[in-house]
Amino acid sequence: MPYHDTRSGLGAGIESTSGKHSLFEEEIRKLPISICSVFLDEKGTIRPAAFREAETVLTSKDLDGTLRVFPLTVGLNKNMVLEATSPQIPAKISGKRVAVLFSGGPAAGGHNVIAGLKAVLGKDNILLGIRKGPKGLINGDVFEVDRSQLEDIINTGGFDFLGTDRTKIKTPQQFEKVKETIVKNRLDGLVVVGGDDSNTNAAFIAEYLEREGVQCSVIGIPKTIDGDMAVGKHLPISFGFDTASKIYSELVGNLTQDAASAVKYWHFVKLMGRTASKITLEVALQTKPAVALISEEVAEKNMSLEGIVEYISNIITERRLKGINHGVVLVPEGVVEFIPEMRTLIRELNKVLAEYETDIRDLPTMEKKRDFIYPLLSPQSAQLMASLPKEIEEMLILDRDEHGNVKVSQIETEKLLIDKVRYRVSEIKRHPDRFFGEGHGKLEATPEQIEQIRSMSLSIQSHFLGYEGRSGKPTLFDAALTFNLGLTAGSLVLAGKTGYMAAVTDFEKGGKALALPLSGLITTEERKGKVEAVIEKSLVDLTSPSFAVFAENRDKWARQDLFSSPGPIQHWGPTSRQIPISVALDQGYSDYSNFKLGEVRKVEFD
Amino acid sequence: MPYHDTRSGLGAGIESTSGKHSLFEEEIRKLPISICSVFLDEKGTIRPAAFREAETVLTSKDLDGTLRVFPLTVGLNKNMVLEATSPQIPAKISGKRVAVLFSGGPAAGGHNVIAGLKAVLGKDNILLGIRKGPKGLINGDVFEVDRSQLEDIINTGGFDFLGTDRTKIKTPQQFEKVKETIVKNRLDGLVVVGGDDSNTNAAFIAEYLEREGVQCSVIGIPKTIDGDMAVGKHLPISFGFDTASKIYSELVGNLTQDAASAVKYWHFVKLMGRTASKITLEVALQTKPAVALISEEVAEKNMSLEGIVEYISNIITERRLKGINHGVVLVPEGVVEFIPEMRTLIRELNKVLAEYETDIRDLPTMEKKRDFIYPLLSPQSAQLMASLPKEIEEMLILDRDEHGNVKVSQIETEKLLIDKVRYRVSEIKRHPDRFFGEGHGKLEATPEQIEQIRSMSLSIQSHFLGYEGRSGKPTLFDAALTFNLGLTAGSLVLAGKTGYMAAVTDFEKGGKALALPLSGLITTEERKGKVEAVIEKSLVDLTSPSFAVFAENRDKWARQDLFSSPGPIQHWGPTSRQIPISVALDQGYSDYSNFKLGEVRKVEFD
Repeated sequence: MPYHDTRSGLGAGIESTSGKHSLFEEEIRKLPISICSVFLDEKGTIRPAAFREAETVLTSKDLDGTLRVFPLTVGLNKNMVLEATSPQIPAKISGKRVAVLFSGGPAAGGHNVIAGLKAVLGKDNILLGIRKGPKGLINGDVFEVDRSQLEDIINTGGFDFLGTDRTKIKTPQQFEKVKETIVKNRLDGLVVVGGDDSNTNAAFIAEYLEREGVQCSVIGIPKTIDGDMAVGKHLPISFGFDTASKIYSELVGNLTQDAASAVKYWHFVKLMGRTASKITLEVALQTKPAVALISEEVAEKNMSLEGIVEYISNIITERRLKGINHGVVLVPEGVVEFIPEMRTLIRELNKVLAEYETDIRDLPTMEKKRDFIYPLLSPQSAQLMASLPKEIEEMLILDRDEHGNVKVSQIETEKLLIDKVRYRVSEIKRHPDRFFGEGHGKLEATPEQIEQIRSMSLSIQSHFLGYEGRSGKPTLFDAALTFNLGLTAGSLVLAGKTGYMAAVTDFEKGGKALALPLSGLITTEERKGKVEAVIEKSLVDLTSPSFAVFAENRDKWARQDLFSSPGPIQHWGPTSRQIPISVALDQGYSDYSNFKLGEVRKVEFD
Repeated sequence: MPYHDTRSGLGAGIESTSGKHSLFEEEIRKLPISICSVFLDEKGTIRPAAFREAETVLTSKDLDGTLRVFPLTVGLNKNMVLEATSPQIPAKISGKRVAVLFSGGPAAGGHNVIAGLKAVLGKDNILLGIRKGPKGLINGDVFEVDRSQLEDIINTGGFDFLGTDRTKIKTPQQFEKVKETIVKNRLDGLVVVGGDDSNTNAAFIAEYLEREGVQCSVIGIPKTIDGDMAVGKHLPISFGFDTASKIYSELVGNLTQDAASAVKYWHFVKLMGRTASKITLEVALQTKPAVALISEEVAEKNMSLEGIVEYISNIITERRLKGINHGVVLVPEGVVEFIPEMRTLIRELNKVLAEYETDIRDLPTMEKKRDFIYPLLSPQSAQLMASLPKEIEEMLILDRDEHGNVKVSQIETEKLLIDKVRYRVSEIKRHPDRFFGEGHGKLEATPEQIEQIRSMSLSIQSHFLGYEGRSGKPTLFDAALTFNLGLTAGSLVLAGKTGYMAAVTDFEKGGKALALPLSGLITTEERKGKVEAVIEKSLVDLTSPSFAVFAENRDKWARQDLFSSPGPIQHWGPTSRQIPISVALDQGYSDYSNFKLGEVRKVEFD
């Protein structure tokens, strides 16, 4: 759209792009969205779906436990999966009031959940927004969403239309307040957009409302950029993962290219995701880096910190033997917590720090604190702790969270690895005889190669990719997935269902909308000595096709410079309809380049 | 392209995308490129342009100085700008041998310079590549570029086809070696793709070869993501700036959206660019952040470090008064070096550290070193130094570069600002009476607002955007700009011109190819006590339209949440042909959304 403002020319044009009106933002609002056929009538108009019981029961790992916690919900839904169907007689439902909130960190597509809800509720029902997440639900911060607002937010990124927060609703007083908000606003439905904790919370609210005799459907929507909410064939992936992993892949792809261009840097990239390494796996499949650590494999294979450092250093050295003194190393944010010996060290430390809290606090210097603590650790843990960089050792001893525990999440994983890799690589240069030659674990190299390696310097740049991936503009896939999740959730409310999570599956053949009983997803787990009901996180499965493709290829990617790059997310053109490679592999799809989630239509709100 | 490998299915398909063959990389290779009409014959085939003298002479700031340094080149080119024209009689030139090298950090589009060169040289002349930059030129690391290689690299990012380095050719021995490489490879032309230093180097090589009687055209190509190579209407911008600033704008746009969504973070983003703040200005015009510092303004207005900290803290506070406790602050990488009082401090420190080198070294503790140094500084500098965070003070005293100077470039600018802003904001909470109320510099606020602010916490996340912007896939604009720069450089070599920099201008009306006399761009400058010939960097001009639009709007962007986001770079669709907003404004274009650089054509190599 050219700007020909005759008063002040282009400057005024630029002013007018503020407040989310860039050329791009205006254009994506107009983009059509794929809509599953079950939500369209013969004329192609959006209408609510009906639901029938699919022949699948989701059984929690701890069925007895969840039966005790959710007796009423399970009584209603029998943990049975529901499948959306075209209604026999189109229901004419009106006057329903449905509220929606965001919970936890932002993810791309949240606004299209709202758009989908509004579209399926139509003009005869009312959509309300709850500001600032669960806190807003407690405080009753509710407003009616206007049709014109939808035209503004459709297909845009972020959660800023409502805001979000991380309050967990757990006390009786909080539940009481939630009920108050629901009753006061005469809500027939509450849609909670969030991750595993938020969906667990939704299940509790559903049970509580049943018990209190309040008629209000509670429906969860699976959101997390980490991709750790997934339920086999029923829910291949949560929303936000595709956009975030594509943004990280774009940047990692650029860094692999930068490494090969400047021919001197090793880029160590920490990727967001504290528990599952799904993002790292997907980014690795997209970009073919020299190294990608997978936390689940580290735990499964009982890898030690030294073992990981040796693995990375060996790849650096083997590439150097081929004259390749550059590369990219992907490090999942939470990997340290998956190293079994680190877990042991931290468990022992927590115990010691709790038992001798005042003694340790009263010791005047770090030196004295160390001398006090070391003899109380197992020899293995003491040795591991002594091998850590000074700052990390200090941080482990001094920094505590509110429960007095070591702040594991604050350990600067990539710095720890960089520090130790730097040292080991310098050792390889200093004592080549220990690392080259014949014998177990030694590398083959000619004397010339060894001399060449000794002249090489190691330049490492560290990066953290996180926040920039949470609020990107949704990919066409995330835009469609979320819109259909919104349609599913809205249909569930209108059908009077409660205690379900909306899900969409079958991305390669038109899409299928499902409702998964939340109680069937929840199990009980001991967390910090307390039994809690939680939705089990979906981690990288080492027997999955996606991991297999990675594992089969990684040595080749390590030893040659075979990087590739998916480029920036495209909203138009031949590459705009890709889904995550790992999802396509694990679902057994034959293709990842062209998702099919129904008829592609421009959405109008009337 | 769906993968239906019947042997091993999708996994094999993913394997086949390695080595720069992602779906996206395959598709961008096929993209057509805009080609200026001067390079096309009646049949639309690419052919070399001829050149005529435009009526413009580029006069260096120090004409006498450059005349002394480049007598032969100036004798030939009279510092006259050349303009490409359609040749009267199409020249049939054959048997010429032209080599190309990359110098300095990577920038998007380098590969299309090579593609343009190859296309214009055609099959009757030979294109050679020089590996690993100037070092390869010295060492004679030269190979013949094959047609099939062009099909691989066209439209792709990075410099990895040749590699690059930062060697500066300055000693007589180095020049001798360069001559050897040129003579040995019978080069008729040498094309140097690089920044200001590399183009200065090209000018020296041209003069040297003239003096030595070696017939070889030396042509520079203006590359720098910082955008600090620009020459008014003759060269609106160097290549790589558009791609890098768009990648940073995408990410900053996402962070503005993230800040507004999570409603608790302040994202401080340091942007690459040590000298010019052009990237920061462009990103600010694209994203409308709460704060963007412009180094040139800091210098011009003689701003102090405290002044900058106060400016940022006040905006944080004013937003909080409106309930907006989040935002984005853009910090150009080199801003510290532009703060006049910091320059003074560093100058004084360099002097003291040189004069008392051994005394200071021999002092055993930091404490004693400090006590020794402080009395030797001016009171202003001593006070400033004492106000810096401990680690920065220590780094200033201990870390030296090879000339014994303070490593200014190592100062962690954003950490310094974050540290000081955190302190000041905590002061505002502790002593509201000093900051609110009536009187100069105080902010107006009700007692309730003050109480609300005192309950707010300040969560700052720091980011550095740099390497991920250098090797992105070129935007359609950078792809076209570089291809036409290659066509221009190749035409200049075939026309026997030497000592020029290729340039392309008139982005809104079909493009005009120019040759700028390098000697006319070079001036003499004192650097570290030595007079050196340099190309003057193009900085942000505070009287330019682009700065004016920023300055007129920034208060509004600071006080409201008016962010917008250009989204990821698009290679297809309605937003794919944008040029930098700042370039459009400063060139007086009426539009930035649709560049015109000639006929859009798919390039074939035969």
